Amino acid sequence: MHTIRHREKLLSRVRRLRGQVEGIERALESDTGCETVLHLIAGARGAMAGLMAEVVEDHVLTHLVDADKHPDALDREAAEQLLEVVRAYLK
Amino acid sequence: MHTIRHREKLLSRVRRLRGQVEGIERALESDTGCETVLHLIAGARGAMAGLMAEVVEDHVLTHLVDADKHPDALDREAAEQLLEVVRAYLK
Amino acid sequence: MHTIRHREKLLSRVRRLRGQVEGIERALESDTGCETVLHLIAGARGAMAGLMAEVVEDHVLTHLVDADKHPDALDREAAEQLLEVVRAYLK
Amino acid sequence: MHTIRHREKLLSRVRRLRGQVEGIERALESDTGCETVLHLIAGARGAMAGLMAEVVEDHVLTHLVDADKHPDALDREAAEQLLEVVRAYLK
Repeated sequence: MHTIRHREKLLSRVRRLRGQVEGIERALESDTGCETVLHLIAGARGAMAGLMAEVVEDHVLTHLVDADKHPDALDREAAEQLLEVVRAYLK
Repeated sequence: MHTIRHREKLLSRVRRLRGQVEGIERALESDTGCETVLHLIAGARGAMAGLMAEVVEDHVLTHLVDADKHPDALDREAAEQLLEVVRAYLK
Repeated sequence: MHTIRHREKLLSRVRRLRGQVEGIERALESDTGCETVLHLIAGARGAMAGLMAEVVEDHVLTHLVDADKHPDALDREAAEQLLEVVRAYLK
Repeated sequence: MHTIRHREKLLSRVRRLRGQVEGIERALESDTGCETVLHLIAGARGAMAGLMAEVVEDHVLTHLVDADKHPDALDREAAEQLLEVVRAYLK
């Protein structure tokens, strides 16, 4: 099993995301207009994509290669190219 | 301002989504493995996309044309074609 | 059947897209590096998304309501909100 | 520079994609209906996503770790988890 590094940073992100989802819930409960609800969902979706991108980045940089057993085996430049694609698609 | 129809249905969706985000939070707090966290986020993202698709559908079918003032003005077939595209992109 | 307006503009877009796809083909034929191919594909994907967004915009503004039969029936503000969402998702 | 393996397979994909883009072009030239054009674009977009997924897969499996210098350094299970996420997002 691969545990996750930077958990505090990810927890901040996921708590902010929870706040945004609660905001959508409150907006729906209080009969807020459709346009506001669409904006709130778009914002929460962006936050979710950012969270996903960060977990994937962590996964690529720390789990694809066990750095203790194989130091320097991960090609950092190739990893960075991959993460660029991931970020572009998760926007 | 356009209020939202089917609010109860949307509220069920957003509450389920909140539960999924809380699940991600608990997973991060309890040091769950990266693979599980990735799956939880992918699930929550799907739920968010479904919520967005439903709000957009509601918006297209009820807000683009004021049916009281202009009954029958919305071309249902053209609207359905649009919603197919929206659903395909929000998957 | 709904014919498409602004066909010349869309044709320019699709021809540019074809040029980009041919560029990917040439890059693969000439054994270009992976990083360049990834960039070329990302560019072509952006062009495809822009084309899709433009056809959807045309569809929303001209096909959802038959303006000859129902002038003023389309709520322009609601349509614009929808197109904002579509553009955000097609980026 | 990382050259690409499986080039013939990728070339088949990109040529099929080019054929689909040419189909969109012909549809626009012949004043085909909007609904058909939307479907053609959606199909081409799927083909483009499949091409991107394949190049990314190749990149992950062959470029992140130089297998000649570091055999067995790439954690195949972690790589497969990453590719699952990539495929889900590129659908």
